[in-house]
Amino acid sequence: MGRTIALLQLDPTVGDLLGNVQRLEHLARIAHSEGAQCAVSTELAISGYPPRDLLLRPDFVQSCLESASQLNSPIPILLGTPLPPSADRRLPGNGVIRRDEAGAREVVRKQLLPTYDVFDEARYFAPGRSSGLTRGIGGMELGVTVCEDAWQHSGHTPADYECDPIAQMAEWGRQGMKIDATVNLSASPYHLHKSQLRSDMAAKAAQTLGHPFILVNQVGGNDDLIFDGRSLVAWPDGSVELAPGWKEGVLLVDLDSRSTKWIGEPEPDCDELLSAVSIGLADYCQKSGLDKVVLGLSGGIDSAVCAAVAARALGPKNVIGISMPSRHSSQHSKDDAQATASALGIEYQVRPIDEMHELADKSLSDELETGHAVAAENLQSRLRALFVMGVANARGAMALATGNKSELAMGYCTLYGDMAGGYAPLGDLLKTEVYALAHAINSLSPENPPINRSTLEKPPSAELAPNQKDEDNLPPYEVLDTILEAWIEDGVKSSEHDAQTVDWVIKRLHANEHKRWQMPPAPRVSRRAFGQGWRQALASRSA
Amino acid sequence: MGRTIALLQLDPTVGDLLGNVQRLEHLARIAHSEGAQCAVSTELAISGYPPRDLLLRPDFVQSCLESASQLNSPIPILLGTPLPPSADRRLPGNGVIRRDEAGAREVVRKQLLPTYDVFDEARYFAPGRSSGLTRGIGGMELGVTVCEDAWQHSGHTPADYECDPIAQMAEWGRQGMKIDATVNLSASPYHLHKSQLRSDMAAKAAQTLGHPFILVNQVGGNDDLIFDGRSLVAWPDGSVELAPGWKEGVLLVDLDSRSTKWIGEPEPDCDELLSAVSIGLADYCQKSGLDKVVLGLSGGIDSAVCAAVAARALGPKNVIGISMPSRHSSQHSKDDAQATASALGIEYQVRPIDEMHELADKSLSDELETGHAVAAENLQSRLRALFVMGVANARGAMALATGNKSELAMGYCTLYGDMAGGYAPLGDLLKTEVYALAHAINSLSPENPPINRSTLEKPPSAELAPNQKDEDNLPPYEVLDTILEAWIEDGVKSSEHDAQTVDWVIKRLHANEHKRWQMPPAPRVSRRAFGQGWRQALASRSA
Repeated sequence: MGRTIALLQLDPTVGDLLGNVQRLEHLARIAHSEGAQCAVSTELAISGYPPRDLLLRPDFVQSCLESASQLNSPIPILLGTPLPPSADRRLPGNGVIRRDEAGAREVVRKQLLPTYDVFDEARYFAPGRSSGLTRGIGGMELGVTVCEDAWQHSGHTPADYECDPIAQMAEWGRQGMKIDATVNLSASPYHLHKSQLRSDMAAKAAQTLGHPFILVNQVGGNDDLIFDGRSLVAWPDGSVELAPGWKEGVLLVDLDSRSTKWIGEPEPDCDELLSAVSIGLADYCQKSGLDKVVLGLSGGIDSAVCAAVAARALGPKNVIGISMPSRHSSQHSKDDAQATASALGIEYQVRPIDEMHELADKSLSDELETGHAVAAENLQSRLRALFVMGVANARGAMALATGNKSELAMGYCTLYGDMAGGYAPLGDLLKTEVYALAHAINSLSPENPPINRSTLEKPPSAELAPNQKDEDNLPPYEVLDTILEAWIEDGVKSSEHDAQTVDWVIKRLHANEHKRWQMPPAPRVSRRAFGQGWRQALASRSA
Repeated sequence: MGRTIALLQLDPTVGDLLGNVQRLEHLARIAHSEGAQCAVSTELAISGYPPRDLLLRPDFVQSCLESASQLNSPIPILLGTPLPPSADRRLPGNGVIRRDEAGAREVVRKQLLPTYDVFDEARYFAPGRSSGLTRGIGGMELGVTVCEDAWQHSGHTPADYECDPIAQMAEWGRQGMKIDATVNLSASPYHLHKSQLRSDMAAKAAQTLGHPFILVNQVGGNDDLIFDGRSLVAWPDGSVELAPGWKEGVLLVDLDSRSTKWIGEPEPDCDELLSAVSIGLADYCQKSGLDKVVLGLSGGIDSAVCAAVAARALGPKNVIGISMPSRHSSQHSKDDAQATASALGIEYQVRPIDEMHELADKSLSDELETGHAVAAENLQSRLRALFVMGVANARGAMALATGNKSELAMGYCTLYGDMAGGYAPLGDLLKTEVYALAHAINSLSPENPPINRSTLEKPPSAELAPNQKDEDNLPPYEVLDTILEAWIEDGVKSSEHDAQTVDWVIKRLHANEHKRWQMPPAPRVSRRAFGQGWRQALASRSA
């Protein structure tokens, strides 16, 4: 008998214990039929990751443990699940249980609880106190760690942890303990270039351990977090083999022949960001029981790219694009919107806002005549939201907010207008990344590109005032994006541009925190998203 | 010379280092002129609490330390401030420095870092490793702790802390160390009945310590958090004396005569919740540089109470109420709205939405005829938001969302409609609490009550369909609120009502998480607000 471990790369739904168990059982049966001796799930596979405040309910944690304990697998399996508090603790554990013919028993609790960036595990869990080892599982001796436990060793965490579980495990090996491989149950979120970082971390772990390091990663979207999968095995020589990204499936790792085999669909053959935002939207809808989305099509690049992402995520027949021209809309905007809808094969509606706009102007003329100009501009954006939400509510569909990270950063967008929607597919993409995504989308169907040349080449404009261009109000996007990226991702002021522009951008970024408070979830693709919940002193709250 | 400590009950603005320093210097001069020998600030007084992701910027932390070190006080002062990381740590400290004629030096770093409920300090700080003691400050020996440090001892925290700083301090006392008093620099947020809890905690600490326990608490609002002040001294016999709530000022505590003296305005002589939501709104506006608010006045109780709170917080001349009757609005609704505006003396506008409503119906007739009824109902709410935001934008004012916690819990409200606004003064008050608040408001001017009898007595209605009543769609509010309070605050299913109703309410509560994702900040007055950021599996996202 060989020594083959099955990595169950799962796309769970948070809170859907029954559904998650059934998917795990399905994957475990595949693993068995392919000859694996044991299987390993992702982190918190039973509850889905992250369950957030569900973890504050003891009955929920107990249900997770019971679901894991009763799971039917034809081969022994290591399952990630919340565990009730240890005797001397008040908080639950982020744990692993071993389920086999002998029943179910606890193997380990996660020691390192990340509490930075998107992570808030110190809020929910008490840390485990030692690394885990499980003996004779499918004939193997396995070291067992959970996600962050493995990251401290490569120096990739910003936290002040007191221990290094990989070093502990290596020490056990040096002391003569037999360990065939160390597994790591993960829910390691995606960001650009994260996969390389993860491979580097795994290679370092395997080299230190002197035996294979095996990481099983969650896949799929959950609200604003997305997971790329790409479960992996790192061999002690530093070589790493990855499972495909963005798909549920089983990676078989044969420790004897040092070979792997993937049972599942291949990784999508397209741009990485396109896969990321598509699975984010697809899973948000599927896990929420929604199948249709509605969005405004302005003829601009953001809404065209959003429509293409939606068509890819949900199928063209489940996407409704609405062109809502106003007195300020150019003819090419209407043509470009129609061209995108037609190329994608989505439902297309035209609903001019002119009549409503005139009436709104009239109804508010007393205020508009004497007030700030932004009031009149915003009316148009909010009338469009009224139509988009009207169609969405009528159809039981979800509205998409089409804005990008650059304009959200600058507050160059309208609350309850273009910011309206249940999900913002491009909300964490800088404008320059949206352009790159547009080219990637077009390259998939060069004979019938969804984003036409006019949309790609015309200067970006909100079209809320006559001949308005974004560059009238903002630095050119290649400048703005460089400044934003340096400040948001690295906390530094870009030295590539003049200090006055840099300061203007940073000041405006912080002055618009109040708008982002109310933005819908957006799939996290950047290394850092916007900061968390503080307002700058004396920031203006208008518009 | 006596031994008098001045407690500087500060209302800081997060991020406004210069402003906070100036206010502290002002209070310290008052303390000096009143004969105090030393002064103690609130927790993180220099940065304001909570500074959240500002703390991730090393330059911000450094600026805080420099501001504290250079503060000019005529008497020695203990200042709460972020401190740069210790040599072996990556995260900053939540610390206290002593500033006196000899310069500035570190006294202690907070040991217990709350990471539950509204707190996320493990994200930002490394814990200190021992309790603090500062000798000869104004001739006294003071034990020094920071907020949560003192709470573990009374068993009021849900966390698994490894130490108890109050017990440590008491042990030092038993070992013969001279300690005149232990001070606690706090930013202890308000909720209903919190003041009693805080007094009980302080009494227990003083009894254990065997010397006075002195807590200096932040006052004022910051986004969704509000602080009631009520700095206190607990004497070893268990008696407690409180400073007034909701006002900045100085509490002088004379250790020799065991007496206190307050320099500042008295506590407002009104209902506690009214003070809480008023200061929340007042500070949100003041700290954001806004002076005017706009809201829709429906004639219902929520908008009437909101208007009264706004008039109290900002002055009647800074509040604009807009009546926006539709075809479904009753005559008494219009009369009641006007009565409220007139009693409060606020600006009052009437903008009927009928014409816009008809045109919107016509523009969307194809969808409305075949779609869900909620689409047509929501149109009205969103048209009103269009007007409210139009006026707000024109005036450079902030819109108020008038909804209450009961309807937000049930999703009985409209995204981008009545949920629109920069702040929701009643967003954490159950409907029954809104009624109580209405009576409290009326009792302040019984001759001219802002909320008239009709508003108080008519059955609540959204008036979005003919003869619609809230009770057609929801359980009666006294039932609903009992169920919500039991589930949200205590995690239990109310046993007072039938199980079917209870389950219906809880299911609907969780199915509407997606709406609350986009709700504006609301002042936290309940023991528990809504849970954090998870979605129920298969929850519907519509409307």
